[in-house]
Order: sequence, then structure tokens, then C-alpha cells
Amino acid sequence: MNINMEIITSKENPHIKLYQKLSSLKKLRDKEDLFVLEGHRIIFDAINEKVPIIKLFLTQIYFEKHEAELSQVDLKGVNILIVSNELGSKMSLTESTQGIFAICKKNSKYNLTEALEDNEKIIVLHKLQDPGNLGMIIRTADALGINKIILSECCDLFSPKVIRATMGSVFRVNIFIENDILKLFEIFKLKKITSYAAVIDVNASSIRNIKFSNKSAVLIGNEGNGLDKEIINICDERITIVMNGNINSLNAAMAAGIIIWQMSER
Amino acid sequence: MNINMEIITSKENPHIKLYQKLSSLKKLRDKEDLFVLEGHRIIFDAINEKVPIIKLFLTQIYFEKHEAELSQVDLKGVNILIVSNELGSKMSLTESTQGIFAICKKNSKYNLTEALEDNEKIIVLHKLQDPGNLGMIIRTADALGINKIILSECCDLFSPKVIRATMGSVFRVNIFIENDILKLFEIFKLKKITSYAAVIDVNASSIRNIKFSNKSAVLIGNEGNGLDKEIINICDERITIVMNGNINSLNAAMAAGIIIWQMSER
Repeated sequence: MNINMEIITSKENPHIKLYQKLSSLKKLRDKEDLFVLEGHRIIFDAINEKVPIIKLFLTQIYFEKHEAELSQVDLKGVNILIVSNELGSKMSLTESTQGIFAICKKNSKYNLTEALEDNEKIIVLHKLQDPGNLGMIIRTADALGINKIILSECCDLFSPKVIRATMGSVFRVNIFIENDILKLFEIFKLKKITSYAAVIDVNASSIRNIKFSNKSAVLIGNEGNGLDKEIINICDERITIVMNGNINSLNAAMAAGIIIWQMSER
Repeated sequence: MNINMEIITSKENPHIKLYQKLSSLKKLRDKEDLFVLEGHRIIFDAINEKVPIIKLFLTQIYFEKHEAELSQVDLKGVNILIVSNELGSKMSLTESTQGIFAICKKNSKYNLTEALEDNEKIIVLHKLQDPGNLGMIIRTADALGINKIILSECCDLFSPKVIRATMGSVFRVNIFIENDILKLFEIFKLKKITSYAAVIDVNASSIRNIKFSNKSAVLIGNEGNGLDKEIINICDERITIVMNGNINSLNAAMAAGIIIWQMSER
């Protein structure tokens, strides 16, 4: 391990400043192609999934407790820094920090057209704004074996809140960002992928009656407003979760989860 | 409206102290059979669903803005108190309060045996501990038309966090509390209700293949540990969500939601 044992205590240390800025500023994450992680389990998930880690910050307490464990994983080329327990608490977004933080490189961008070659069911999220919802949808897709998610004009995938809510699934599901949604439809047409707009409308087809093929993409819209009308009109079909109860009571992530469940039927 | 226009400014006021204690202490909620609500939408939901409101606290700002609206709903017998905006902020559990708070009476207890007469599908939650999960499950049941939920040794239904997470569904779904789960099984036997234990086990029956009759009850267990072994053994059948992906990635509320979705099929 490449550890710098000098203990960092100041918030003004340039490494700490970089971590803090990446944690709060989407612009910087986009510009530098970096993002941050906090917590033992998710950072070990990242290591296992070969996410490129640039810097690792460990509090003194964390380092003493986990030194053996750390020596067993591949941290070649990772710049490991020790921070005081007090500074760790300041860096943390949680009430009691576990004392491990990382700066990671985003995965290199895939070519969307090529990535959609391999006939998998696809979820498209358009204008989803709540980090907790986005995280939970990614986590559910991972559990149910839907392996392709495309984000279009959503909240930032690399914000700490989203990453945390995915519980590590963010490293396992293939997630693409394409903010030009019309471009997506061109690819769908080219690849003969059927697009389904998820809507709240009793006249749309019930998801219970749809047999989703491996060439299908389901589009799910914003929490409050659903999908834009123009998007719905471009889609091949409109589908809905038929409710027997109170129509306003389905949370967006739950609705997406139920759709993913129906898609995952083989 | 029965309004006391004297503006309360002190946290030491006995009405305010009662509100605060009911907000934080389960023991007092149990002893007094009271609970608290905060927020415009949920309190109007409660009024519409005829939840007995004892006291209503309004900040000055709220009162000025909503006086007309308040005069149009039935607040007979409700003790309405005006509090200073500053005190309202102190009472609030949110960052920026809407300025309306209530103390309500819990619904009188149902007779569980009688309540289970009417052949409806039932969800039983055992030892569920996360308020957000409990709230989201109640909300989902409401949306999908599952109208009977029995809580056994769960976190407190009447805690502010649970109530908030239900988004008002807590007033629409019939929710029973029976901490003696063995008593439940006696009633199920008596009423010829089939009990299904939700488990993570590839050998259990897939929920996709079960036709849930109107005499079925699905039991869902604790977030971390699932159902107790003894409970699983008492149940008539074991059911599972067959996953194609990462088995650890399904959040408890999401798993319950998918089961509710399958139960709600007609």
C-alpha cells in the first residue's frame, strides 16, 4: 500500500478541499470526471467491481481497525491518506462516520449504440429528480436482473446521495447518460427496440398484459409530472400500473420497481 | 371555529409541551391514545377521513394564509391555538415548517376477529423496524387496493416519521396492531385464512405462480433478518421473489411492494 502516514488535520489541505468540492459540486464532478464515495461497504464494493480509485482517505481509527483487511485488496496506484478522526467527522455526510472516503474516476463513456447491440431489456429514466428514488431504482434493477439503465436529464448519478441509495448497485448495473432523448429514439428505431411510455391512464395497456421482449425499453418520467407529452407521443406503446386503490399513493421508485418486476418476467 | 387568538410564544406552554412529548415519546402516545401530525396536506387528509382531531396549532403566517380554507372544513369541537412563527419553527421536525400541527386521537381499537370476517387479502408485517419502510408499504397497499395490514412488533405506527411516509394512506388503510403473533395464527386457522411466509429461498414457491385468494395473508419480516424461523414453520406456505440479479439489492419496502402487487392481481 502506498500510504502517506502524515496525518492530515486541516480542512484547507488541498486533497481534502478537492474531496469536499467533488462531494458538493456537480460541475466539478463533470469537469474532472471524478466522484466521491464514503463508507466501508460501498468502497469495498467499488474495489471489488474494479472502479478506479484515485485517493483513499482513512481516519486513524479506521486505519487501526482495518489495516489487515486493506492489505488484502488491490490498492495499487491508490494514493492513501490518513486524516485525523476529527477531520473525518467534518468530511462526513453522516452523523457518525465510518472513517473511510474515496475519490474515484467515473467509468469511461460507453458508446450507446454499441452498448444496445446485445438485446437486453432497458429502463429509461427521464427527468427523475429525487436522488433517493434514482438510487432505489438502480438497486431494484440490479436485484431483478435488468442490467441497462439510461438516464436522460435526471439528477446527478454521481451525487453522494444517489450513490449511497444504490447500495453498491451503481457499480454493477450498466448506466448510460444521454440527455438528448431524441437521439435515443433514433437508436431505438435503428435497433428495432420497442419503446413503452409508463403513464397513469386507465386507457393505457396494463403492464400485467405485456410480454416484454429483449428488444424493449420502458420510459419512466418525473416524480410529479410523469413523462412529457411529446415523449409519450413518440413511444410505440403506453403502459400503466392498474391501481385498485388510491391513485396518488404510489411513490415513483415503487412504481418503477413494479414495472421492473414485470419486465424481469422471463 | 373555536379559536383562541391569544398567541402562544413559549415552549413551556402546557399544550406545546404535550405536543412535543407526543411527538417524541411512544410511551405517552400509547398511554394517552393520542398522536401528532404536522403539515397542511396530511392534516387536511385527516380531516377528510374523519380522524378525531383534539387540538390544532397554527402559526400566525399559516392562519392568515389559510383562514378561508379552514372555515370550510368541519372543525367542530377542535381546540384551535395560534402560535408565533418562531415557536412553530421550533415545534417542526422539518427544515421549513408549513405552520400547521395537530394532536389527534387514535382510532378506537377494532376487534381483529370480527375485522377479518370480510374476506380481504391481508399483509402482516412482523418486526419491521424502519419508519420509512413501514410508511412506504402502507402507501403502496393503499395504491394497489390491499386494505388490511396487521402490524406485529413493528416500529410505532404513530411515530411522526411513519405517518409522514404514508402520505395520508395511514388514514385509509385498515391497520391493526397485534403483538402476539401466535394469536393471529389462531384467528387465521379459525377463519380458514392461508398464511404465506415471504422468504429469500430459491426452494420456496415463486410469487409469480401463486394465485392469492381472498382468504390469504402474507407475512413479511424484519429488514435485516427476515421472518423468524418459528414463524416460517407455522405458515402454510413459503413464497419468494425470484431474483435474476444481486440478491442483496432489494430494499424491504420494495420487496413488500412487489409482493403486494402480485397479491393485488384479480
